[in-house]
Amino acid sequence: MTLEAIKYRRGELEILNQLLLPHHTIYEEIITVKDGWEAINQMKVRGAPAIAIVGCLSLAVELHNKDFKHVSEIGIFVQDKVAYLVTARPTAVNLSKTGVSIFQYCKDLITAGNENIESLKSQLLDRMEKLLQDDINDNTRLGEHGAECILQGMAGENNAGCTILTHCNTGSLATAGYGTALGVIRSLKKRNRLEHVYCTETRPYNQGARLTAYELVHEKIPATLIADSMVALLMKTKKLSAVVVGADRVAKNGDTANKIGTYQLALLAKHHNIPFYVAAPVTCHCDVTYHGDDIVIEERPPHELKQIAGVKIAPDGIDCWNPSFDVTEHKLITGIMTENGVFTPKEFQDQIHLP
Amino acid sequence: MTLEAIKYRRGELEILNQLLLPHHTIYEEIITVKDGWEAINQMKVRGAPAIAIVGCLSLAVELHNKDFKHVSEIGIFVQDKVAYLVTARPTAVNLSKTGVSIFQYCKDLITAGNENIESLKSQLLDRMEKLLQDDINDNTRLGEHGAECILQGMAGENNAGCTILTHCNTGSLATAGYGTALGVIRSLKKRNRLEHVYCTETRPYNQGARLTAYELVHEKIPATLIADSMVALLMKTKKLSAVVVGADRVAKNGDTANKIGTYQLALLAKHHNIPFYVAAPVTCHCDVTYHGDDIVIEERPPHELKQIAGVKIAPDGIDCWNPSFDVTEHKLITGIMTENGVFTPKEFQDQIHLP
Repeated sequence: MTLEAIKYRRGELEILNQLLLPHHTIYEEIITVKDGWEAINQMKVRGAPAIAIVGCLSLAVELHNKDFKHVSEIGIFVQDKVAYLVTARPTAVNLSKTGVSIFQYCKDLITAGNENIESLKSQLLDRMEKLLQDDINDNTRLGEHGAECILQGMAGENNAGCTILTHCNTGSLATAGYGTALGVIRSLKKRNRLEHVYCTETRPYNQGARLTAYELVHEKIPATLIADSMVALLMKTKKLSAVVVGADRVAKNGDTANKIGTYQLALLAKHHNIPFYVAAPVTCHCDVTYHGDDIVIEERPPHELKQIAGVKIAPDGIDCWNPSFDVTEHKLITGIMTENGVFTPKEFQDQIHLP
Repeated sequence: MTLEAIKYRRGELEILNQLLLPHHTIYEEIITVKDGWEAINQMKVRGAPAIAIVGCLSLAVELHNKDFKHVSEIGIFVQDKVAYLVTARPTAVNLSKTGVSIFQYCKDLITAGNENIESLKSQLLDRMEKLLQDDINDNTRLGEHGAECILQGMAGENNAGCTILTHCNTGSLATAGYGTALGVIRSLKKRNRLEHVYCTETRPYNQGARLTAYELVHEKIPATLIADSMVALLMKTKKLSAVVVGADRVAKNGDTANKIGTYQLALLAKHHNIPFYVAAPVTCHCDVTYHGDDIVIEERPPHELKQIAGVKIAPDGIDCWNPSFDVTEHKLITGIMTENGVFTPKEFQDQIHLP
């Protein structure tokens, strides 16, 4: 069974506290937007698609349980909560994009003259609840397009299995349930065309070692964990078919912000002539950021680098630099995998953002 | 005061157990060659120069405390112990090179007709004890040449400070006391030309976080710790003067085996136009290995990647790949810093190995 990071039914939300994985499987209740904000900010839930969904579902739960006297109160409530939510993690665009679209939907309903409080609440809840299933559907389509693309690139090697390197966690735990880069891997496996997966441990938060490795073991996918320092040697000595990573934000020109370490993976892949793909559903694409340089990179507290599972691993007194993301220039990206197909950065610039 | 990894006086040897740093400063007694082998194999002491010295000094202590009936017994004893010692860690050449030179010296003394047991022992002990001071002297000269070279490269920026990125640990803890790459940093600091040092944490054994950061704090050198995944972003956004790393073995063509992750540092430095230097005293140069491909890369047990300070950080059942070193091709190396000067790989090939 696929891992479930988000458990929701109307009025109730639970999230798997991913900080405790792989050792403890503990779900925590989210009752308010504040709970949602904290879970996202503390990285109990992470992964760009998942944090957008958890953020909005925390709003759905608080909205469901709250009484309003007038629809205008709902409009103000949604606006305030969305503005607060987007501050939880600045780099992932899905959260702000989805939040803003919910607020816009709310505003449109009110403007259209919807004056029944319960009906407005219900329509908003429907809209937010749809995010879960939409994400799974989009990821599944993305996975199929991505798998097809990688296999086409191996056309000379009929029925050979692929060997994929991935970074961070982009699986069931990072999304509503199928995964982006890990969804592509899942689709390759369904076609019996997956030979092996390598995953980086992804310091400093170890999402690769804690979460991706956990998912790969859970799904019985043949896989090997490596340290981030081993990537170049891996590329030189093992035959990799492709590198596939997720995205926290894709700018209009195709530049992509993703977990720290992605930029160097792309550079090393280029040097070793290995195709480098970004798996990014349209929710990750940012219409207001033209260029990667315009993306604000979140820096997290130094202590996250100095301890692991509560154990100190560096001396007191040492300064740390802890950027959480980096930006990979579009020219280093072979293709951007989406639910609508796989695009070269050039095609992406030309097509995806057409009205 | 400089940190002391090796405490020796005739008949007595203690080493700082570096596995317990930075939390505990505990010295352990080494009485036999077997003790020395285990300390090296378990990485209580590491760093190519330091393990050669500890290996030979463990032989010195056992030789000093042992009674022999005939000089030929000493010859056999030294031969056996050297053959055993070199199996502790295969990649670092210093250990086998120094061990073989000690055995050769012993054989020469015996061949020359030296029949006095105590005199033979004493000459062998002198020879092995000299390794400590020789290493410090060589490192100091290397540091001066290296600092000079980096400053010359900054000729346009009079009196500006350097910003250096280093990897793994190459300091007092890896040598007899001055350091190789960290010796260059020390020399830059002595000249008041050091602006800042960045050190990678150096997964999976965290020598950067545990040891280099510890030494840098101890020496009050302005420094920042980063994860191995942050190197490319660091190179892109901070102004680095040079990358300086150590070496476990330099082949005759200049290809260099060093701590895993070095190869990708060199590739990333090349992309970002940052000079990449290897600081390697002549004891690291291997006369019998022509090409980097001929260097045997030690692979260490998977569990070293799956736990940190005794805490599990990956799920049960995940496979790991744990190569301890990689090889950087000479064409990626700007210069090889030695006690005899700094050489381009081409000069190195032409000059260093002339008779």
